[in-house]
Amino acid sequence: MIRINENFLSMEKNYLFIDIAKRLAAYTAAHPDKPLIRMGIGDVTLPLAPAVVTAMKKAADEMGVKETFRGYEDSGAGYAFLREAISGYYKTLGADVSTDEIRVNDGAKSDCGNITDIFSRDNTVLMTDPVYPVYADSNRMAGRNILYADSDESNGFAAMPDKYVRADIIYLCSPNNPTGSVYTKEQLEKWVAYALVSEAVIIYDSAYEAFITDPSIPRSIYCIEGAKRCAIEMCSLSKTAGFTGVRCGYTVIPDELVVKASDGRDVKLADLWARRQGSKFNGVSYPVQRAAEAVFTEEGQRQIRENIHYYQRNAMVIANTLDELGIKYTGGINSPYIWLKCPGGMGSWEFFDYLLDKVQVVGTPGEGFGRNGCGWFRLTSFNSYENTVEAMARLKTLDI
Amino acid sequence: MIRINENFLSMEKNYLFIDIAKRLAAYTAAHPDKPLIRMGIGDVTLPLAPAVVTAMKKAADEMGVKETFRGYEDSGAGYAFLREAISGYYKTLGADVSTDEIRVNDGAKSDCGNITDIFSRDNTVLMTDPVYPVYADSNRMAGRNILYADSDESNGFAAMPDKYVRADIIYLCSPNNPTGSVYTKEQLEKWVAYALVSEAVIIYDSAYEAFITDPSIPRSIYCIEGAKRCAIEMCSLSKTAGFTGVRCGYTVIPDELVVKASDGRDVKLADLWARRQGSKFNGVSYPVQRAAEAVFTEEGQRQIRENIHYYQRNAMVIANTLDELGIKYTGGINSPYIWLKCPGGMGSWEFFDYLLDKVQVVGTPGEGFGRNGCGWFRLTSFNSYENTVEAMARLKTLDI
Repeated sequence: MIRINENFLSMEKNYLFIDIAKRLAAYTAAHPDKPLIRMGIGDVTLPLAPAVVTAMKKAADEMGVKETFRGYEDSGAGYAFLREAISGYYKTLGADVSTDEIRVNDGAKSDCGNITDIFSRDNTVLMTDPVYPVYADSNRMAGRNILYADSDESNGFAAMPDKYVRADIIYLCSPNNPTGSVYTKEQLEKWVAYALVSEAVIIYDSAYEAFITDPSIPRSIYCIEGAKRCAIEMCSLSKTAGFTGVRCGYTVIPDELVVKASDGRDVKLADLWARRQGSKFNGVSYPVQRAAEAVFTEEGQRQIRENIHYYQRNAMVIANTLDELGIKYTGGINSPYIWLKCPGGMGSWEFFDYLLDKVQVVGTPGEGFGRNGCGWFRLTSFNSYENTVEAMARLKTLDI
Repeated sequence: MIRINENFLSMEKNYLFIDIAKRLAAYTAAHPDKPLIRMGIGDVTLPLAPAVVTAMKKAADEMGVKETFRGYEDSGAGYAFLREAISGYYKTLGADVSTDEIRVNDGAKSDCGNITDIFSRDNTVLMTDPVYPVYADSNRMAGRNILYADSDESNGFAAMPDKYVRADIIYLCSPNNPTGSVYTKEQLEKWVAYALVSEAVIIYDSAYEAFITDPSIPRSIYCIEGAKRCAIEMCSLSKTAGFTGVRCGYTVIPDELVVKASDGRDVKLADLWARRQGSKFNGVSYPVQRAAEAVFTEEGQRQIRENIHYYQRNAMVIANTLDELGIKYTGGINSPYIWLKCPGGMGSWEFFDYLLDKVQVVGTPGEGFGRNGCGWFRLTSFNSYENTVEAMARLKTLDI
């Protein structure tokens, strides 16, 4: 008789976005004359850059001609042309990542969840609270023990390691989703030192690195000395180049990342991951890889930068408004997210209802991301400039 | 200290294609004047259908315009337009599959491996020998016990259930890779009955269904009464429409497929899979989904049929030659694969070297797919017509 993986049964459903949708539906039904401004959007809204569209169409044409048709990609790790482009991009970030250390994927979320396949179940996992739910859920499915490091007002929502806490797998995300906080070089050095001492592996999610404007903030964990011996980095073109619907990202497992097996032999994590992907993944669509390659050209970089600047201007509008209102927040700079303290001691959901009812502005209650999110609230910079300005004008009319 | 998943260490490397590549490289170096004909190709060679290319380019254009841009796909299960097209296609196969039972993926290999996440580790897995290595490898990674049902000459390489063998998860592939055998309706009825009695789940790989020409052979497991209570079906556009480099497939988990948890509650496998995919997958590229939709239009079906007929003609050329030479085989009809008995009692590798040396024709030694493949050999119909004819002419010159 077949038995299911019962770890699934103990997982709470993620009600956050369902709850939000329900409340919005009820409000809209009762007030059809009051249009909402959605400032909780976690998705990009600007179209693909022209260079990206052109590259994808050219590749589609190639696939329609026998001489240029491409079938299975031999290794499934990504075509050399794209891995070389990514390796070159890392150089501009001040990190040395070779093409062989990169595997292209269909978005960071897949690898972020699937990477746990190569680790034993009995590892202890450490992640921050609040946290992007995927890190927790993919480890709960495997039945792993999870510890949380508190990200809260006292540390600027950027949790640091505690030497009395032992962990084997550490998830870090900077710029952070949902709090918009970023780790400084010194902070990342402490995490790397902690991981090396603990012989732990850091899974570093750099999906929002393109939003970093402060040149002193590392845009890759590999800007840190020693990180290649303890960290896997996952990045994505979703927010960098608006690829949320195109689906392409990349994972770096450095050659030096070697772990001892129980029989004493040295095992390269990159080899395990290649074995895993070899059996469970068949590579990324060729036209998508050509589209991704275009992102890293001079023209592509210029075009995607325009979109990022557009979102950054929105973030600035929000940050300036919060400054004016005397509301505390993290993010806004170096990040598309703004994480604010609900004014007047309101709870997350209380503030959600308040904003909806008074000014029809929608955000995301922070407690949906963990207990340290109670009393906090996430706004994003992904709406249009006009809507962002209008939403902030409405906020200023409130007695908060 | 981090511990790896040591199941990986006990997995043999898949040397088959590496070994083949080495022998070919050595032969070519020694005989640069003797060009090879590769009849072991497991990949398609004809380009995408024009309707598919047009649809993909149109979607790429949509992604470049703000009004038609698409970001994250809400459910990640596939757009309704594609799931409706697939559901409609199932009707033409005589199977009733609703849009809600379908999830679109980036190819059958991913789901085939990842589906095991929703099952407990202590299930016993049954698969045929010879077998597509992905079924075995993905379960070895999870540490599951695997039993093999012998597919051999005595049963036409179509293993049937043994009521004295207990299994919880059963992999079936028809038309079969590598043996080209197909299950009849009566045979599939026996497998479904066996699964229902054992309360087992069948994972049915129908990736080659489009090659079936005999109307009495089911092209979906759901053509069998009761299958919706015990079977998950995985299909792919890789071989149907030349999507090996485009990456799109689909998995069906019927609504009726309900399993009892240890606390007695009924759990729908589709719900577990949706939860798994919700945390570890973000949907398929929009332009790829539009390309896939085009496959199911009248024009698309007509165009992909032309390609399939081309490969079927090649298969016929091979089959006729083997008939003429009095060599036993399965497949060729209803399948792009031809699985032949090495003449003169030769072993798989012996015959490989013999063909290479005498006539420079390359195939795949059957023992790479399991012990019942010893003494057998796989040819495929994916080379050009001209090369297939030439390879068979060369075979006829041999004293076999």
